[in-house]
Amino acid sequence: MKERAREARAENRVIGLVPTMGALHRGHLELIERAKRDCSPVIASIFVNPKQFGPNEDFSKYPRTFESDSEKLQQAGVDALFAPEAAEIYPAGFSAYVNVEGLSERLEGRSRPGHFRGVATVVMKFLQIVQPHFAYFGRKDAQQSKIIMQMARDLNLDTEIVVCPIVREPDGLALSSRNAYLNAEERHAATVLHRALEAARNELAAGVRDALQLQAVLHRVLGAERFARVDYAEIVDAKTFEPVTRVGKPCYVVLAVFVGKTRLIDNLYIEPKEASSDDLEIRF
Amino acid sequence: MKERAREARAENRVIGLVPTMGALHRGHLELIERAKRDCSPVIASIFVNPKQFGPNEDFSKYPRTFESDSEKLQQAGVDALFAPEAAEIYPAGFSAYVNVEGLSERLEGRSRPGHFRGVATVVMKFLQIVQPHFAYFGRKDAQQSKIIMQMARDLNLDTEIVVCPIVREPDGLALSSRNAYLNAEERHAATVLHRALEAARNELAAGVRDALQLQAVLHRVLGAERFARVDYAEIVDAKTFEPVTRVGKPCYVVLAVFVGKTRLIDNLYIEPKEASSDDLEIRF
Repeated sequence: MKERAREARAENRVIGLVPTMGALHRGHLELIERAKRDCSPVIASIFVNPKQFGPNEDFSKYPRTFESDSEKLQQAGVDALFAPEAAEIYPAGFSAYVNVEGLSERLEGRSRPGHFRGVATVVMKFLQIVQPHFAYFGRKDAQQSKIIMQMARDLNLDTEIVVCPIVREPDGLALSSRNAYLNAEERHAATVLHRALEAARNELAAGVRDALQLQAVLHRVLGAERFARVDYAEIVDAKTFEPVTRVGKPCYVVLAVFVGKTRLIDNLYIEPKEASSDDLEIRF
Repeated sequence: MKERAREARAENRVIGLVPTMGALHRGHLELIERAKRDCSPVIASIFVNPKQFGPNEDFSKYPRTFESDSEKLQQAGVDALFAPEAAEIYPAGFSAYVNVEGLSERLEGRSRPGHFRGVATVVMKFLQIVQPHFAYFGRKDAQQSKIIMQMARDLNLDTEIVVCPIVREPDGLALSSRNAYLNAEERHAATVLHRALEAARNELAAGVRDALQLQAVLHRVLGAERFARVDYAEIVDAKTFEPVTRVGKPCYVVLAVFVGKTRLIDNLYIEPKEASSDDLEIRF
């Protein structure tokens, strides 16, 4: 892979990387579409990264659908698939980690200790191996995207991080490989994340800016769904992921909710249209 | 610097980096000589890295001799000097760090908490900026060299780390920018590190292999010097820097000693000549 990347760089080609854990859905395929607009070659990677799963998480049962994934990638027109073994990526004695401090400890990081250390480390490795000019991530994992952007900036990486919109089912559920865990009842209940975000959007449209008031609405909607158990539901600064008291600068409404045993996340992006006005741009 | 590195890479030139904190001495100049044999261009950097100094350490009084350093580098024939400001290297909100776990916590890391996190992070940044094929470090900082090699391997960096021999004064004192702190009495006393290593070498030559016995000799020599106060004096595995009980595989005798208020380090490298024989190769 390194050799191939070196050749592409020597030929002045623009390398794009779409890193995935496989179990590909339309969200991944839209990342690839976007990469193909900017880059050639486009490299997709599939690697279920053990270092980003906690000891009680779903590493072993995470969906692995390599055959159908590689077919999808071929149809999508990627130029190469990089799918290394864990023993190659983490040889015996592996001990160098990247940590984006602060950002990695909040929200997802608090619920999943060590998660972002695993994410930042594996992304660093893949960026060094594939040497992409652009790497594509989905905004569903908003905190992850921010952490990777921070790493790329702070450590002077040669890769521009591109964050792409969330892709949703017709009923609003954000696409995720983990949606495969849901049974029919849970799948129905899982729309509660989107419904909560919609409720927050409606409050914002009605002029509400107070974070506690918005949070109360989120909890009201989420609490009414009997299959759902809230992990967190917060309004946070889009740069620091620290809680805000008032929506007045770019921020996210971030949700993590267990539906049955499946932990789902989603978010809403909010940005004041102009510093002076009270108009907001809101992105699901 | 990044642009210049990209151009050199595009022209298929072999880039060498000699990272320094300035206050250059013959040790640094030998790194440059070595780099010039392998590489063109050779880039030297001068950056007194605030992140690798503890709050009670000598960051503010670390010798800064930029004018004479850049003259020396010019005379030595380096192709470029990279000397960024701290505010460029650590912009506001900087939070991404590289940590080589385990290795960074022992010996120097235990005496200087956070030191190796600062070292690994700044070296990672400089390697990303300068994109060298080879980077040169002195073996006086044996644990640092090992940590950087481990980082380069684990994070798939494109740089080969080259570790060069210790350069010594005629009386055995290892060259260090911190030797400038020593007054005449202390300068004389500072030879005690080399004398202790010599005593260990003599024991080894006499067939002693037991680490405690070697350590006792080190402490006897170091303890006899009234200006010296031992921080650590150990026999450690050359890969893990964990203490060994017996010299039977590659290892280091590592010393950290305060001479007056100045903390000096030195080491001796020991390698069995053949797995089967009892002969040792010993490098000061």
